[in-house]
Amino acid sequence: MKENKKLAHASLESLYRIFTVPEAPDSTLGRIDQSISQNMAGFLQDHIVASERALALIEKDFSNPFIPEDPSFVSDQIEFLLDKLVAQSVHVASPSFVGHMASALPYFMLPLTRIMTALNQNLVKVETSKAFTPLERQVIGMIHHLIYQQDEDFYTKWMHDRSHAIGSFCSGGTIANLTALWAARNNLFAPSAGFAGLAQEGLAAGMAHFGYRGLAVLVSERGHYSLGKAADILGIGRRNLVAIQTDAHNRIRVDSLAASCDQLQSEGIRVMAIIGVAGSSETGNVDPLNAMADVAQQRGIHFHVDSAWGGPTLFSHKYRTLLAGIERADSVTLDAHKQLYVPMGAGICVFRRPETLSSVEHHAEYIIRKGSKDLGSHSVEGSRPGMAVLVHAGLHIIARSGYELLIDQGIEKACRFADLIKATPDYELITEPELNILTYRYVPQYVRKLLDSEDKALRDRANTLLNSITKSIQKTQRGLGRSFVSRTQLNPERYDRQAIIVFRVVLANPLTTMEILAGILEEQREIAKKDPVLSEMLKLQALERSMQG
Amino acid sequence: MKENKKLAHASLESLYRIFTVPEAPDSTLGRIDQSISQNMAGFLQDHIVASERALALIEKDFSNPFIPEDPSFVSDQIEFLLDKLVAQSVHVASPSFVGHMASALPYFMLPLTRIMTALNQNLVKVETSKAFTPLERQVIGMIHHLIYQQDEDFYTKWMHDRSHAIGSFCSGGTIANLTALWAARNNLFAPSAGFAGLAQEGLAAGMAHFGYRGLAVLVSERGHYSLGKAADILGIGRRNLVAIQTDAHNRIRVDSLAASCDQLQSEGIRVMAIIGVAGSSETGNVDPLNAMADVAQQRGIHFHVDSAWGGPTLFSHKYRTLLAGIERADSVTLDAHKQLYVPMGAGICVFRRPETLSSVEHHAEYIIRKGSKDLGSHSVEGSRPGMAVLVHAGLHIIARSGYELLIDQGIEKACRFADLIKATPDYELITEPELNILTYRYVPQYVRKLLDSEDKALRDRANTLLNSITKSIQKTQRGLGRSFVSRTQLNPERYDRQAIIVFRVVLANPLTTMEILAGILEEQREIAKKDPVLSEMLKLQALERSMQG
Repeated sequence: MKENKKLAHASLESLYRIFTVPEAPDSTLGRIDQSISQNMAGFLQDHIVASERALALIEKDFSNPFIPEDPSFVSDQIEFLLDKLVAQSVHVASPSFVGHMASALPYFMLPLTRIMTALNQNLVKVETSKAFTPLERQVIGMIHHLIYQQDEDFYTKWMHDRSHAIGSFCSGGTIANLTALWAARNNLFAPSAGFAGLAQEGLAAGMAHFGYRGLAVLVSERGHYSLGKAADILGIGRRNLVAIQTDAHNRIRVDSLAASCDQLQSEGIRVMAIIGVAGSSETGNVDPLNAMADVAQQRGIHFHVDSAWGGPTLFSHKYRTLLAGIERADSVTLDAHKQLYVPMGAGICVFRRPETLSSVEHHAEYIIRKGSKDLGSHSVEGSRPGMAVLVHAGLHIIARSGYELLIDQGIEKACRFADLIKATPDYELITEPELNILTYRYVPQYVRKLLDSEDKALRDRANTLLNSITKSIQKTQRGLGRSFVSRTQLNPERYDRQAIIVFRVVLANPLTTMEILAGILEEQREIAKKDPVLSEMLKLQALERSMQG
Repeated sequence: MKENKKLAHASLESLYRIFTVPEAPDSTLGRIDQSISQNMAGFLQDHIVASERALALIEKDFSNPFIPEDPSFVSDQIEFLLDKLVAQSVHVASPSFVGHMASALPYFMLPLTRIMTALNQNLVKVETSKAFTPLERQVIGMIHHLIYQQDEDFYTKWMHDRSHAIGSFCSGGTIANLTALWAARNNLFAPSAGFAGLAQEGLAAGMAHFGYRGLAVLVSERGHYSLGKAADILGIGRRNLVAIQTDAHNRIRVDSLAASCDQLQSEGIRVMAIIGVAGSSETGNVDPLNAMADVAQQRGIHFHVDSAWGGPTLFSHKYRTLLAGIERADSVTLDAHKQLYVPMGAGICVFRRPETLSSVEHHAEYIIRKGSKDLGSHSVEGSRPGMAVLVHAGLHIIARSGYELLIDQGIEKACRFADLIKATPDYELITEPELNILTYRYVPQYVRKLLDSEDKALRDRANTLLNSITKSIQKTQRGLGRSFVSRTQLNPERYDRQAIIVFRVVLANPLTTMEILAGILEEQREIAKKDPVLSEMLKLQALERSMQG
């Protein structure tokens, strides 16, 4: 067998070869395939270049907009990708990369993905997925049970029911949140006398029919950005996604939430949904879901919980109470590609009542026919891959007790890291970990006292300088490529809600150790020492001394 | 190394193993992995059970809604999946399965998918994708060029521009169509004096501001069902997706389209978009895009072309003229997981003007910041996998000339199959292939003359019986599992627009031969002969004779 397969002048015969002749084991692609199978971490370590290349330079390798006329050798394309793409990828699986929500993957996910790809099923309908449809319905049922704990009869009746879906499997949390709000909106504008329903007649007709002056969706200021996008897409408007203030722990203020609801409704603005955050992306805090459920229930408002990140905390006997009240939500989002350790592209939205999602049900003639069990009749997406098989495997191979260990070690590691930061004089913990996310920043001791100054202008100037240095440290550390923390901006009460830039750490990778975390602090300190902004700080210190003098 | 990895009572140590120790080559999963790598077709042939199992029986294997407490051995899970899932999957790659829009995959897609999965990049932002973002922008640029043929300067200026996106890569055509209509809607309701734009204020406020009584989207009655769903999601309403009649060739009647536009606008209903179909899902016909572009342009209406299926016809010098006018569209959908031969989950929407997609631009604090090159600022989805690498590989390894061969052989095979059907007395071609899709049905000779009867009741009864037998043959053939055609329902002019059920054949798999197609006709005839409905037909024949007598 020739190593290099190429469609020499694209003959039909050479074309058949790429569909029928496998990559030879000693071909470039065959060798890479083996190497990843045998040592994924080693492959990534060997092929991803640590030090950062400027994006503008990387773009040069991807600047040709013209589709090549003639076929390339497979090996040439693979060499190109290894050299230009893989080398310049982000090492998200590295235990010292603790700024992303993607972590290392269990090994079994790789060969399973190959089975999924080879089968290439399409979950839109049974006819192109057959057993994958029942499997996906089971996965949705399992996640539904994780959250809602209904009895066996419930699932016997509904899980495989041909005219209902108790959830929707999709590509990620953004689509899951959109699905939930789509269903909530359509239920609010359900068909009634003289109105065929919003799905048929549109939003403006619905507003006119029910006499609403406006619509609103309420979520804390820590709500995920996908909610604003959903408000745009669904025609509600970003302005009508009302951000409710959070308390000192980044949790929604339920008194403000209730007051806003009542204020809006008194103005003729219908509150379409209240959204609880169960693991905010930036700080990992969880809203008081039970109290929010009360507010929603008393007013007949759809209650959605976005637990894209935090949902799997329910696996932990010790920490699941953090999410108490989630079982009262009308809909819940959970991302499998986050804390279920599945590769990118798997989210789920589940619904407490089997009929909630019926408000978005749709059919066609050649597909997702009425009465079929096709999952495509209740989903935002159409054609979809069989990612549910990966979730199914995770739920069986890792199981409840395995996921519990992963959750527990993450939260406990976050607590230990928070303790370390608090015990380190030149670091400041900004948000305590509630789940496995925390934020902090580097604050040299001589700046720290400025932060305690009585002079607000001085405090503000110190924070502005710290913002600049935090941003600079984060970029430099990312550029060095040995470790990675992300950064975000918060408005802590302790600094009069001034915008504070912070390092953000997500501790989901079980291979991350305390030694690695201590090393990250050490590296940041070293970077800071060389930072030009620090000289600004020294000037500030001199200024302070002169003021005292 | 132990073959079976299991988290015995889920200890942390055993948990680390699944993240650090690869599947042994002689483990169950290792062996399967090898077997797919070396002989994908053989693996699928060996493991997919041909004869159909009742869905209710399959569901029994996926009926437990409870997440297991204790971990399973990887090998046990894999044995289960082989036996219960793979065995009962649909053999979409088989050359005798010509009813799906998924075909066989080129071999190189499998190891490439492994590289993609191992890297697990997230395309929402550069920080989690790095070189994958420039690569995806290049792929979008290449598809843009395939359609719009702009000059090099255009792509140099826009392809990697940090505040624009000339397209959006997504999970499939449904999301691509949604993206296009989202952008069209928001541009129609752009910010103006006293109005902050629909994205901010919502649809009802926008309608009030511009004084529209209603909104409409126009597409032929052959438009894809995802368009109705988009009309629902975007708040336009399914009723306001106006279906325009098609001609005898399933192409939109442009005179009706223009008349509808003018009628609606005279009633104060703003036509938001006109959608051209370039390869209808059911019949593969292409709307007269140039004439539609005239209608849209004269009236200042967004013109979208859904070429999810037919877009790659542009690779063919011989057939690309079928899509003439597509370059005048404001936005175009193309599915990579269809005729670019990429695994499930890859669609693209491109926009002629770089500023069109800016109407849906959004930002957040910790991600997709303003001024970043993050692709997530212009997409419906959030986190997304790096599927673009598979498209990039296809465009280089198969290249323009290779895709041309694939397109040409598909269309020509469809023509030969159509000729065969027309030459076979007991079959009736319902729609001629324009691309590589055709529809037909089995019509025994003694029924055919009834169809020509002067008596409409008799003709209708014959068609009703044929509908029943077509449906029955299709199901039986699917159940036997040797071959597969799909079915749909059309309303041909020749039968007074009565609903006619037809077999639908999609000829995208290059491995499908004329012998296979002839065999499919033969098998259908054999099935028909055993069908109980046929005895009904014989009765009908007797009835006819008695009427003549």
